[in-house]
Amino acid sequence: MVAITLGSHVVMKNLSLSKVYQLIEPGPVVLLTTACKGHANVMTMSWHMMVEFEPPQIACIVSNANHSFAALRATKECVIAIPALELVPKVAKVGNSSGQKIDKFKRYGLTPVPAERVAAPLIAECYANLECKVIDTSFVARYNLFILEVLKAWIDPAQTNPQTIPHHGYGSFAVDGEIIKLKSRMR
Amino acid sequence: MVAITLGSHVVMKNLSLSKVYQLIEPGPVVLLTTACKGHANVMTMSWHMMVEFEPPQIACIVSNANHSFAALRATKECVIAIPALELVPKVAKVGNSSGQKIDKFKRYGLTPVPAERVAAPLIAECYANLECKVIDTSFVARYNLFILEVLKAWIDPAQTNPQTIPHHGYGSFAVDGEIIKLKSRMR
Repeated sequence: MVAITLGSHVVMKNLSLSKVYQLIEPGPVVLLTTACKGHANVMTMSWHMMVEFEPPQIACIVSNANHSFAALRATKECVIAIPALELVPKVAKVGNSSGQKIDKFKRYGLTPVPAERVAAPLIAECYANLECKVIDTSFVARYNLFILEVLKAWIDPAQTNPQTIPHHGYGSFAVDGEIIKLKSRMR
Repeated sequence: MVAITLGSHVVMKNLSLSKVYQLIEPGPVVLLTTACKGHANVMTMSWHMMVEFEPPQIACIVSNANHSFAALRATKECVIAIPALELVPKVAKVGNSSGQKIDKFKRYGLTPVPAERVAAPLIAECYANLECKVIDTSFVARYNLFILEVLKAWIDPAQTNPQTIPHHGYGSFAVDGEIIKLKSRMR
């Protein structure tokens, strides 16, 4: 599939897997969705990093105190959805509530969209969505550390210059500002 | 030790380990120093994440293609030095050269300063320096993934409002801009 539509509106276009690291490397706050036994959930996450360019592998910490932990460990599937600036209030609310008690999608007005390769939903409002499978759980018991591989990546063509949201702790978010370009051989 | 001076100038003050995650979580580009057999080296790194708040644990990817890889694996010690905006040109140069051929400290005008707990040097020009030991190498063979524990943290009291440098790939750096504060229970 190369595009996902909601009604007549294209909400997601296919993104080359070789470009995924450019989304994750700057360390944006992201949303992580899971689906277990028919129930989808979403959490806010900021502890993640790239592990490999291609196929893109991502390490992330999902605390066993989070309701999403059990779903992620059991289903070995998730979506990393990357919100832009406009979603900061919702991202904070998602991070401050538990899916054990409420349906956070409904409560906070986030639209779950069926993914192609995993049962966890994409989030229509996010400018990028990464469908992931857990490929290694051997650091989960010690560090709550999951190794993910990105199977499919989506980008919202309507969000042309999204500002992402690095997290500075305790509800303080820094927004990407000035971009400085230097000659570099670094990938 | 609570402060480090160069001449009469205090370049580093002790920082509480409980605050280390606030430095790493936003995903700044960092410099990683090592020292092996009397030779110090420095590389640029952007694949890292927090693993635990306290004691602070950090995961990072150091490619086995990097000259620093062997030193880090052999000595199990390093310093994560966090540069602010002014150092972007040096950070890019460090990332585009190899310590196998040159002394990058001398070449690029970075000042190595003896650390307290590790042999790897602090960098005087950086606004924060984290002395780290490698506590787990069991993911090194598979993913070049090291788990570090921060033993001691330093902050430059003269750099009061440093702008850090998230990396967007291929020499494009985004500089933290606007800060948005929201009521939050997230740490």
